[in-house]
Amino acid sequence: MPTIVPVILCGGSGTRLWPRSRVAKPKPFLPLVGDNTLFEAALARCPASGGFAAPFVVTGRQHVDHVEAQLGEASEGQVIVEPSARNTAAAIALAANRLPEDAVMLVCPSDHHIGNAEAFTEAACAAADLAAEGWLVSFGIEATAPETGFGYLKRGDAISQGAYRTAQFVEKPDLERAKAFLAEGIYAWNGGIFAFRVKEFLEELATHRPQIAAGVAAAVAKGTEDGRRFHPDADIFAAVPSDSVDYAVMENTARAAMVPVDMSWSDIGNWHALHEALDRDADGNSIRGSASVDMVDCRNVLVDSDGPRVSVIGLEDVIVVVDGDDIMITTIAGVQKVGKLSGAVNQ
Amino acid sequence: MPTIVPVILCGGSGTRLWPRSRVAKPKPFLPLVGDNTLFEAALARCPASGGFAAPFVVTGRQHVDHVEAQLGEASEGQVIVEPSARNTAAAIALAANRLPEDAVMLVCPSDHHIGNAEAFTEAACAAADLAAEGWLVSFGIEATAPETGFGYLKRGDAISQGAYRTAQFVEKPDLERAKAFLAEGIYAWNGGIFAFRVKEFLEELATHRPQIAAGVAAAVAKGTEDGRRFHPDADIFAAVPSDSVDYAVMENTARAAMVPVDMSWSDIGNWHALHEALDRDADGNSIRGSASVDMVDCRNVLVDSDGPRVSVIGLEDVIVVVDGDDIMITTIAGVQKVGKLSGAVNQ
Repeated sequence: MPTIVPVILCGGSGTRLWPRSRVAKPKPFLPLVGDNTLFEAALARCPASGGFAAPFVVTGRQHVDHVEAQLGEASEGQVIVEPSARNTAAAIALAANRLPEDAVMLVCPSDHHIGNAEAFTEAACAAADLAAEGWLVSFGIEATAPETGFGYLKRGDAISQGAYRTAQFVEKPDLERAKAFLAEGIYAWNGGIFAFRVKEFLEELATHRPQIAAGVAAAVAKGTEDGRRFHPDADIFAAVPSDSVDYAVMENTARAAMVPVDMSWSDIGNWHALHEALDRDADGNSIRGSASVDMVDCRNVLVDSDGPRVSVIGLEDVIVVVDGDDIMITTIAGVQKVGKLSGAVNQ
Repeated sequence: MPTIVPVILCGGSGTRLWPRSRVAKPKPFLPLVGDNTLFEAALARCPASGGFAAPFVVTGRQHVDHVEAQLGEASEGQVIVEPSARNTAAAIALAANRLPEDAVMLVCPSDHHIGNAEAFTEAACAAADLAAEGWLVSFGIEATAPETGFGYLKRGDAISQGAYRTAQFVEKPDLERAKAFLAEGIYAWNGGIFAFRVKEFLEELATHRPQIAAGVAAAVAKGTEDGRRFHPDADIFAAVPSDSVDYAVMENTARAAMVPVDMSWSDIGNWHALHEALDRDADGNSIRGSASVDMVDCRNVLVDSDGPRVSVIGLEDVIVVVDGDDIMITTIAGVQKVGKLSGAVNQ
């Protein structure tokens, strides 16, 4: 197995899990499932003891303090500070330009939950092996529901045991198509986890998005080091086109591969997804936080309070969140509208 | 019309409208509907300018400060401080023993809402006239729904225009019977509003509950005045049997009469009743308090917050109350269980 460099992409807008998640402290930096924050959990899945190299964290200026506080002083990890947000293609290219050509990057979002860490590790090793052979590898996350909020990967020909060509990248489908994908069994969720060898990633980026490749290379060349932090040149980086790695590279490359993995994954993309990722009692209820909670005749209710006592009677399929001077109550059917609440928009 | 002395009974346990209502500051002393508290509104319905005498307020020691603060310094009203709670028969008897024999008492709870004050005044005059003739008069509040939470009065023979004998006092019925009462049209709600001349009230009490009559008379005889406050003797009063005026007197007397009245009455007996008494928007929603409230896709929702912003999505038939460090959320179907919440019980 080649040495794997975890490249952790760390950002977030703080609206979909408002009011717990805020612009000033978004999702990755909150202990949403268990005692660790999602970012800490992402780091913990790639430990030095497991053969992983020290991580590269790519984050924005506004999150650097959270990142360093949670990275820990002992860690050898490096932090690349994006002067502006330019989407995932540029973010990954920043890390690639700071690494040797033969390094294998394991690109991980920092705001997902993975229940089965062993399955993750196994898939990471398989993906790294493929990447070391020159493939650009996506994790193909086993679809367990007809989700319309994710892109899908269609499995193609087998490359080796547990490794396939990616036949097609599919945009977020409607419910009809999502159900058909689930039935067909050869479609997986695209969770934004990738393994790339630096050489092939930069080659493909230069082929399909030469402006991004050149711009990021120049921004890194003119960048400055500051302890463990690296600051790309702000003016040059600001001119880099903003594009996702899926659009920029994965949908265009002829070397796209996928590693199917079933690892109890969730993007914790809204309050319903968080509720599903938590332990629930026999009635489907769960409680987060240390506040006193009194539930009477409730089913499938999540109460998350940072202080005030919450007493609830008769609710079903409802989420209650108390954060400072904000109380947010939504039906599960309404969770997609949380980010549109005036409190979430006008932070 | 005889001079009417308002006798305002002022207490409450503070559980059914918890957490807004608390043991330390129960329902009568809260501005639940409009800007006045329910107690202030009860006083305002019996003004000197309307020919009413200064009120007698009967209350417990724990509520005296609230009573005096809301009674106002200008008022000539007197406050009888119950050394212990002995139910309504004894409470009314305390006032009766402090008044001349020919005074007509208008006994009013202090924690009800009356939307139509003119109808109240009209009924009060009619009831006082009847009381001055020796009748023990109940307000017969027009039943507008098959309520199972109230006692009912069955209308008997007419005494005069708008005045009837009470044929029967009926305990809280089940839903079946309540529906039949509503259909029959001769059953009214017993809202605990009475008109009694002191002489007849004390006579009937002495006849049917001699222990209460004698005990209260002795407690008043040995009582002490302290400014506008009157303190019955605590030890004697503690030995007085506890009984409601309905059981002790009204169900036994041969002189029971009733005055039917339709006055948009509510006992504000739970959060649903309060929601019904409030102004609501086209979707049936209402907001109490000055806190910021954001409602999306809600119907028939009441939000009452004393500070924190409340953002609500997709709820229907739900009450949300924020009071200090307590948040209470209940379906309308669940309002009867509010008083049983551990927060309400363990105050």
